[in-house]
Order: sequence, then structure tokens, then C-alpha cells
Amino acid sequence: MRILNHEIPSAVGQTVTVAGWVHRRRRLAAVSFLILRDRSGLAQIVVKGSQAQLDELGEETVVQVTGTVAANPQAPGGAEIVDPVIEPLTEPAATPPIELWRPTVGAGLPVVLDNAPVALRHPVVRAGWEIAAAALHGFRSALDGQGFTEIQTPKIVGTATESGANVFALDYFGGPAYLAQSPQFYKQQMVGVFERVFEVGPVFRAEPHDTVRHLAEYVSLDAEFGFITDHRDVLAVLRTAIDGMLSAVGSRASSALERLGIELPEIPVDVPVVHFSEALKIAGANPDEPDLAPADERAVGEWALHEHGSAFVAVEGYPMVKRPFYTHPQPSDPRWSNSFDLLFRGMELVTGGQRLHRYSDYVAALAARGESADAPAYSSYLQAFKHGMPPHGGFAIGLERFVARLTGAENVREVTLFPRDLHRLAP
Amino acid sequence: MRILNHEIPSAVGQTVTVAGWVHRRRRLAAVSFLILRDRSGLAQIVVKGSQAQLDELGEETVVQVTGTVAANPQAPGGAEIVDPVIEPLTEPAATPPIELWRPTVGAGLPVVLDNAPVALRHPVVRAGWEIAAAALHGFRSALDGQGFTEIQTPKIVGTATESGANVFALDYFGGPAYLAQSPQFYKQQMVGVFERVFEVGPVFRAEPHDTVRHLAEYVSLDAEFGFITDHRDVLAVLRTAIDGMLSAVGSRASSALERLGIELPEIPVDVPVVHFSEALKIAGANPDEPDLAPADERAVGEWALHEHGSAFVAVEGYPMVKRPFYTHPQPSDPRWSNSFDLLFRGMELVTGGQRLHRYSDYVAALAARGESADAPAYSSYLQAFKHGMPPHGGFAIGLERFVARLTGAENVREVTLFPRDLHRLAP
Repeated sequence: MRILNHEIPSAVGQTVTVAGWVHRRRRLAAVSFLILRDRSGLAQIVVKGSQAQLDELGEETVVQVTGTVAANPQAPGGAEIVDPVIEPLTEPAATPPIELWRPTVGAGLPVVLDNAPVALRHPVVRAGWEIAAAALHGFRSALDGQGFTEIQTPKIVGTATESGANVFALDYFGGPAYLAQSPQFYKQQMVGVFERVFEVGPVFRAEPHDTVRHLAEYVSLDAEFGFITDHRDVLAVLRTAIDGMLSAVGSRASSALERLGIELPEIPVDVPVVHFSEALKIAGANPDEPDLAPADERAVGEWALHEHGSAFVAVEGYPMVKRPFYTHPQPSDPRWSNSFDLLFRGMELVTGGQRLHRYSDYVAALAARGESADAPAYSSYLQAFKHGMPPHGGFAIGLERFVARLTGAENVREVTLFPRDLHRLAP
Repeated sequence: MRILNHEIPSAVGQTVTVAGWVHRRRRLAAVSFLILRDRSGLAQIVVKGSQAQLDELGEETVVQVTGTVAANPQAPGGAEIVDPVIEPLTEPAATPPIELWRPTVGAGLPVVLDNAPVALRHPVVRAGWEIAAAALHGFRSALDGQGFTEIQTPKIVGTATESGANVFALDYFGGPAYLAQSPQFYKQQMVGVFERVFEVGPVFRAEPHDTVRHLAEYVSLDAEFGFITDHRDVLAVLRTAIDGMLSAVGSRASSALERLGIELPEIPVDVPVVHFSEALKIAGANPDEPDLAPADERAVGEWALHEHGSAFVAVEGYPMVKRPFYTHPQPSDPRWSNSFDLLFRGMELVTGGQRLHRYSDYVAALAARGESADAPAYSSYLQAFKHGMPPHGGFAIGLERFVARLTGAENVREVTLFPRDLHRLAP
């Protein structure tokens, strides 16, 4: 019966079997060490006598080791395995393209990405996804606790509705179809069924820009829910979701945080909120600007940290002209919207807001853009609104962006298992 | 502060506010009833005096109701709301295309699917997805409890590897790409990183057959893990996953089960296992048949029910010629494979098995099919195997098929939010 490496220290004096990858061999004059890696961490195996077998077990060979656990303060966790019987579980491994046993990744990002199947085994590279997986768990738990129902909606859609540009077209049994840019329309419709829904799944953007922030395919954490007063209710649920994600990362990926040397931020119970027009003033920007430039976001982030001690700040009221047609206007002044961006350390992390819920408002909003609510692109989406939809809103968090912000990764590709972009379709 | 309808019975004597959809109005001589539907169920509102407002509130209009809770044994849950103040939260709703208040769905499947955004509000139609959502939760919880890491792998892939046929092709920045038929290659590679992984996500099949069992896009529940002895270890984890799914459906979707009149099956701790060659005998089929016909599966299902009292039975050892190239042969006789199908009530529900784990075995298996391990379609996938992979295996469960089998739905479309097939790309 195999035990995991992290269980070794609690088995001193016992005979145990462990299994994993040969992480490193260190050969000294009288004794050698085999460092074994499994999903729980590293273990030290002490090999005395003949080194012949060790010579054959190249790094990354998969082995099973049976031996006795002995206390040793110098070993990982304070214990090591002595008198081992080592049995290869497969043929000797070829030398990896990246030295996985080095504490830091000694290769540039293109090499890491080209060799992802193996490079991801490096404990530092792997840490990014461990944090992502914990965040996914935290997101679902938090919303599950708030009465949300998980949905899974189609990624192949018949019309390129949300924005004509940047969609991938495919051949659907001889006719045209597209990859969904977001589950926006579906999650809104499902508010009419389940009231509160979330979806975790891939979204697709035929993003022609080659930047450190954009991917052609990424994981979107979407939520949408009804019976709200306005976008502030959306922000409150978003705050709960992010708090859940951070907590889960702290409890489930603590080892990954350690490997990356990261301290987790906290999101305050009351996230500071500033109106868009106020944000422009804080940033010293032209009051007619329709959007916040990166420098403006940084200035607002600094303001929030200084004034409220918060790494998070919400900017509400973005100009309607810069928001999608389904955005609900600010009732007191319809130039502004009931939507927000949540900034984290001075960079946009999440967009959310209240949506229109009256059918007649959709007809007017589309007409103002020269479009018809009866167009095939909208008719089925808007059927839900003809038949009664509550005031509602929601948000979407990009998983890779969340993890990159948290870890300080400069490029979202660093925290994506197999990124897709303008130039990359493999591995 | 809004409460949910199912909380009404515990608030007798109090003034409460509820909100939801006008499910039905029943007008009698002296009094009328407004049946209000929210995500938790139905509530009865008693309207005395003028009926004018009720006349305007067509079915599906969204309203908020404030009133006093009174005990009434005839009302749902034994309580109703009297002296209500009813406030519409949106404009009056148009009459739905399907009478949502009728206990049964009075429309055929095409009408239901064409009007999915509204038809899914029917408590019976909605029940299918409530069961699906619970099953997703149970799947993740069960594997999380077994040390699995969630992964999310790309759905846009560069090569149509697993099977040349039935893939969707798309235009990827001017070059060719395909939609992933399954995360098979990626989940195997990730065994080298996390040892035990699962993924819940869409898979795509350009399925040219118009049957009640096939969809062009469905949700696949995939698991893959290392350090196994053989496929029996895979079956044991699959059993744990299905047990978790059934338990979650029982605890989280009990109301949906009631609405559909379904009794949950149990999966035995030791699922009966029969070898493929034995299954042919049980079915009275020709011993040279390379596969089980539907009638054979039914016969094996009946045998398992009769001999073992189990609705589930695993058939192991399927002929290698009928299994994918990465399948591990049965060591004692390489005509057979270390793979299995799990039958539920005499129909195939899941396929799983042990995979090859030696690079040299992949080279040989591909060569036997006239293919090269160095081909672009395989080189990146097989990199993981060059650098040490443990014995491993896994399985994939089709979510829609699981729910259809459970509910007895004849057509998987009945339990899919927005099905995609040869003829359907909307809504």
C-alpha cells in the first residue's frame, strides 16, 4: 500500500512504500541520495552500497521505493527512507528539456510553453495551476452557499451577437457557426429559470493582439442573478466570490503560495467604491475621457490603498457609450451606467453590473444602435424578456487573469496550462 | 428583505416579502389566488376585493408581494399569504408559448427545445438540469476527496488526433484548427504533473447521425490518474464518483426527483464485473463478435440484476481491435484489453480503462496502425511519455447521458439546456 511523501515523517520506524518521479540524484563518496517527487512533495531516499542501479535511473524515471523510515533533521520533513528497494515502474526516462530539480525555472517562457507537458512538472511552474484549481473550488463553493445553480451552456452558437469582431467561425455540418465569446446571453436567460446561476467554462476570442494579457481561449467564471436592487448587489456577491476564492487558495494551495513566495491579499467586507467621474478626478484625467487609461487605474488603485487600506477598489458608473447594449443605465443620469470594474492592485480584474430587464428597454437600446430586437441574433435571447425577467445583473472573472494578478505573473501564459494565442496552437 | 417561498410556512403570523413569477391565477367568486413561483417552489397568495390588478398580471409577470403569513392546511407547505400588496417588478409578461402552470408539459420536444428560454421554467422541464447540476457537484466532491486536481484544458486543438472523423474544423487566425473531441491527451499528460486529475467541460463531436443518444456538443466528466495496478483500480474510483453523483442528486435535487417521480438507484460497493467473452456467452451471442449489441447489453444488465441485484455491471476485456490505440492490453492475453464499459440498466454509461504508459509501447501501437509517434499529431502528447509516466488510467462520463439514464428520458435532448445537433444550433 503506497503512502504519499508528505506522510513519511509520521511513519518513523515503519516499512513503507512510496512512488513517484526521480527528481534528482546526488552522489557522494560513501552514500547517494535519490530525491523522489510525488504530488505531495519531495522525499529523500538514502542509497548505500552499489550505485549501479542509481546510474540507470535518469531524472523523471517513475519508481516505487520500499524501505524503512528514519528520522533525520536534514531531510525534508525531518525523515528519510533508508535501506530502500527501488523498482522502476517504467522504462528509464529521457533527460527532460528543462532541469526540473533546480529551485528556479532555468528556461524562458517560450521553452516552458513549448515543453508544457514536462515543464509543468517543475514545482514552481505547477504552482500557478494549483492556485487556479483552488480558486475554481472557492468560486463554486462561495456561490453554492448563496443559492446559485451551476449551468453549462453551449460553446457553439449560431450567431456572432455580442460583438461582431473577434469571433472564431467554424464549419457546422456545412453551415456557419461561431465559438461563444461568453455565456452572457445564456446566463441571463437562465436567471428566468434558476434565479441565480454560475458557469465555469471556456470562452473564445479571436484576439488579433499579441499582448501579455490576452488569450484566444480562457476560462471564464461567470455569475448572474435576479431580484437585485442595482449593481451594488452584484458587487456584494462578487466580493463574496473573490473572498471565497482567496480563502480556498490560502487553504488548498498554501504550498504553492510558499513555493512562489506570495502573500495572500484580503478583500475588505466593504470594498471601496468610487464613481467613474470621481475616478477621473483622482487620476487627474480629462473629465471628458470615456474610459480609464492604465495609468488612471493605477492612480485609483493607489488612492484606494492609501485612503482605505484596500488592494481592491470598484469603479462604478462607466459611461454607457463604452458598455454593451444590455447594460442598465444609472437611473439618476442615463449617461452613466449601473456597471462597474473591480480593480485589484490598480488593474482591472472583473467587469460587472446590472442589465436591462424590460423587453421594451432592449428594443430601444438595440434601435439606438441601429439594430432590431427581432433579428435572428437577438430574438431567441430576448424571448426570455418578453415573458418576465426580474431586475438582474452579474459579472465575469477571467481565471488566468485572476491568478496572474495574484501571483504577480507578468504574462497570463505563465499561469495557463496550455495557452492559445495568435501564434500558439500547441501543445 | 425578501424571503423564499419555501420559508413561508415558518413565518406564520409575520409580515413577509416574497418575489417571483406569476405562475397561475385562479379566480373564484369571492376570492382569487395568485400562485407565485420562485426558485424554491410555489406559494399561494390570497387576493380579496378588487380583481383589477390581478387581471393585468399575466402569467410569468415578475412581482414582489408583501403580506401576512396565515396557516392554511390546503396551501402549499400549509401556509399562504393574505392581505397582499402586489408590486410588479417589470412590465406585464406576454403569454408563454407553453402553459407553464400545468402539472405536465403539454407540448412536444421540438416545441420545448425551440422555446427553451421559457420552457425550462416549467418545474418538470427544469428538473432534468437540477439533477445534472447536483451530479456535477457530486462528481467534483467525490474526486476532490480522493486527492484529484481539477484541470481545464484547451478546446481548440491543432490536430484531429483521436479519430480523424467527426471533428469540427475552424478558422484559427487564417490557419486550420479543430474542436477537441475529448481532453484525453491532455488529461493523460497531466497525470505526469498532478498524478490525479479531473476535468468537467464541453466536448465536440461532428456527429452526422440524428439519434436520441448523440449530441454535437456535450459535457464530459473526465478523470485520469496514475500509480494504478490495472483497470480494476479505475473501476473502483469510477464507482466512488458515481456513488458521489447519486448521493448529491439525492440530497441536492430531491425536489426534482419528486417532480419526475424517480427513485434513485444504488451502486454496490463491489460492482459486478464480467469479462467480455463471458458477456457474449450470457447474451447468447456469437463468440467472435468484437462488440456488444444493444440487445447483448440488455441481457448482461438483466443477468447482473438477477445474479447480483445490481443495476450496474462492468464488462471488462473488450477486444483491443475495438479500442483506441492508447488502450493497455490484458497482460495474460493481448487480444483483450484492460478496459471496460460500465452498463447501467443494460445500457452503456461509461467507458474506462488502463492506458499504455511506456513510450516504446506507444511507438509500437501507432506503428501497428501505420502511424508514427513522431507525427505532429502525437509528438507533443507523447513527450510526457518519453520523460516518465506511471501506469495510469481513467474514464469519461457523459453528463447528459448519465441524467437521461437516471430519469429515464428517451432523448438526451430532454435533459440538456440548449442541445446542439445536426439540425439544431439555436436557441
